[in-house]
Amino acid sequence: MSDTPRLAPGKVRRLRRLADADGRFAMLAIDQRGSLFSMIAARTGRAEADVADAEMTAIKRVITEAVAPLATAVLTDPLFGYPHTAPVIPADCGVLVAGEVTGYEAAGDDERLSTLIDGWSVAETARQGADAAKLLLWHHPDASAATHAHQRAVAEEVGAACAEHEVPFVLEIVTYPMGAVRKGTAEWARVKPSLVADAAATFSDPRYGVDLLKLEFPADLKYVEDYADQPYASGEVAYGLAEVRAACEAVDAASGVPWVILSAGVDPAEFVENVRLVGEAGASGFLCGRAVWKRVVDGFPSEAAMREIAREISVPAFEQIRAANAGARPWTAHPYVAGVPSALAL
Amino acid sequence: MSDTPRLAPGKVRRLRRLADADGRFAMLAIDQRGSLFSMIAARTGRAEADVADAEMTAIKRVITEAVAPLATAVLTDPLFGYPHTAPVIPADCGVLVAGEVTGYEAAGDDERLSTLIDGWSVAETARQGADAAKLLLWHHPDASAATHAHQRAVAEEVGAACAEHEVPFVLEIVTYPMGAVRKGTAEWARVKPSLVADAAATFSDPRYGVDLLKLEFPADLKYVEDYADQPYASGEVAYGLAEVRAACEAVDAASGVPWVILSAGVDPAEFVENVRLVGEAGASGFLCGRAVWKRVVDGFPSEAAMREIAREISVPAFEQIRAANAGARPWTAHPYVAGVPSALAL
Repeated sequence: MSDTPRLAPGKVRRLRRLADADGRFAMLAIDQRGSLFSMIAARTGRAEADVADAEMTAIKRVITEAVAPLATAVLTDPLFGYPHTAPVIPADCGVLVAGEVTGYEAAGDDERLSTLIDGWSVAETARQGADAAKLLLWHHPDASAATHAHQRAVAEEVGAACAEHEVPFVLEIVTYPMGAVRKGTAEWARVKPSLVADAAATFSDPRYGVDLLKLEFPADLKYVEDYADQPYASGEVAYGLAEVRAACEAVDAASGVPWVILSAGVDPAEFVENVRLVGEAGASGFLCGRAVWKRVVDGFPSEAAMREIAREISVPAFEQIRAANAGARPWTAHPYVAGVPSALAL
Repeated sequence: MSDTPRLAPGKVRRLRRLADADGRFAMLAIDQRGSLFSMIAARTGRAEADVADAEMTAIKRVITEAVAPLATAVLTDPLFGYPHTAPVIPADCGVLVAGEVTGYEAAGDDERLSTLIDGWSVAETARQGADAAKLLLWHHPDASAATHAHQRAVAEEVGAACAEHEVPFVLEIVTYPMGAVRKGTAEWARVKPSLVADAAATFSDPRYGVDLLKLEFPADLKYVEDYADQPYASGEVAYGLAEVRAACEAVDAASGVPWVILSAGVDPAEFVENVRLVGEAGASGFLCGRAVWKRVVDGFPSEAAMREIAREISVPAFEQIRAANAGARPWTAHPYVAGVPSALAL
């Protein structure tokens, strides 16, 4: 990869397909595997191993068919998703295909390694007419050198293949707790801002060839003083809204390329706030998963019931989230994009 | 190429991007090179060799910017077109890139050979995010065995590359007069139906892997008794409307894959009739070039004047042509598409 990154014509064309005409991303994530297996198992009282592939594809199809028409793009997976849901993705809705194995490979005491799906490739993603390759990378700044080296090598591998095929590289970075810190605590909420900013800074290095970062919301509104009266408030306070805004701005400053946020399974009302806040700080939109569709699993296994929930709950939720995205910065206005020679200008 | 053609997922996804949501193609052709050089030379009184590349790109940019927003896809060329016009092609407008050298290489007394642009490839077309590769192939059933062999080899080469990259192969076949027959005569009008049907039948052979044929209107309305009062009537009569309809139906019967027609520089009013008639016979739309934009050259070299003509003449002309396309058969309803295993159905 060159030291002077350049938006190749194919990357520009495909990035434009992922966004709306103004350059804002309003994307649906339905590439979940592990978490969806868990949700179906929990719903049915079965073991995860007893969830059938056809049940996975059926849910993904219902959600995709209902929500994709409202989205600028859909993130899907190559196993239970794209081969089965392609016909219900509108032609003018972009497609991203996930490349990572679901979950993680454990390393050391509490470190996480990402690996690529056997048989998945950027070349195949491009061949099938998708518009972007997405990789989920686990990240913690305090991980061992060996873990960092592994994670960086995976990112470099996908980045190089994306450059070769002029396919946008969408890198999702998910941070995780190490040591005594536990998820879902005020302590975790307090370390989140620095972890997410470190993730953005680390993988903005041109060596990875990332075109769009998919990041966590760099705080947790459940622990914000100004949101203490919201239904999702935890009852504990980690910081105030001013610090949350500062965290969003720090991520924007750290991110050398356009970025969007993921929903991490929060409820739609909370995600609406997430989207609004990061948009004000310079994010270019969202890639929303469980926040918009987790309730659909309540209708499982009835396809009719799932369709009904998708129509009555997921569709209006996605519309609300998209409305909150109006203040996002078009990706074409990001300093990185505006600052490199590209096919954007005549 | 397999004997049992199959619409690969990437081909299906890209074909859908070329058509409207119902599966009808309403496409703009602005890949002309030789004919546009001639038009600019004629307009300015210069030699074709004195027409600058930048003048070619300027015209193509004006036309693309004005008409592409109305089209389901744009056919462009890799020399003066796509690299310069990509930014003004909407993200939801498909892109086809032409692969043939403009004009033809002469063979024998009056035979025509097609050749590929040096450096052009289906792989590069795919890499740059285009949705289809287009090849113009000259055809006459009475050509020599050597000419046929050459033409078929070119088609097979492009077809194989398209199959490899899952890029739709759009094959344009243009017939030409041999012997004493001259273009623009009643005699040429009379032989046209059989030539176009032969072209369609010949290149529907699965060995070429063609996904969409771009064919000439298989008759000439300037020589039709029922159109004798039209401004474009020649004053001579070659046949009646019933024979024209029969010619369109014969082409549809001969075409083993979905097909669209080209405009061959006729005036918009005549092309509207062409589109309506082939649509009734089973065509899936049109790929319209000079018919919609030739008047723009009248404004050359003033970009302001060209923009004005494009807005005042090309845009309403394209809208009229597109309205005439309402009766076309969606490509997804073509027996070939309906009859093969594909990613179309869930």
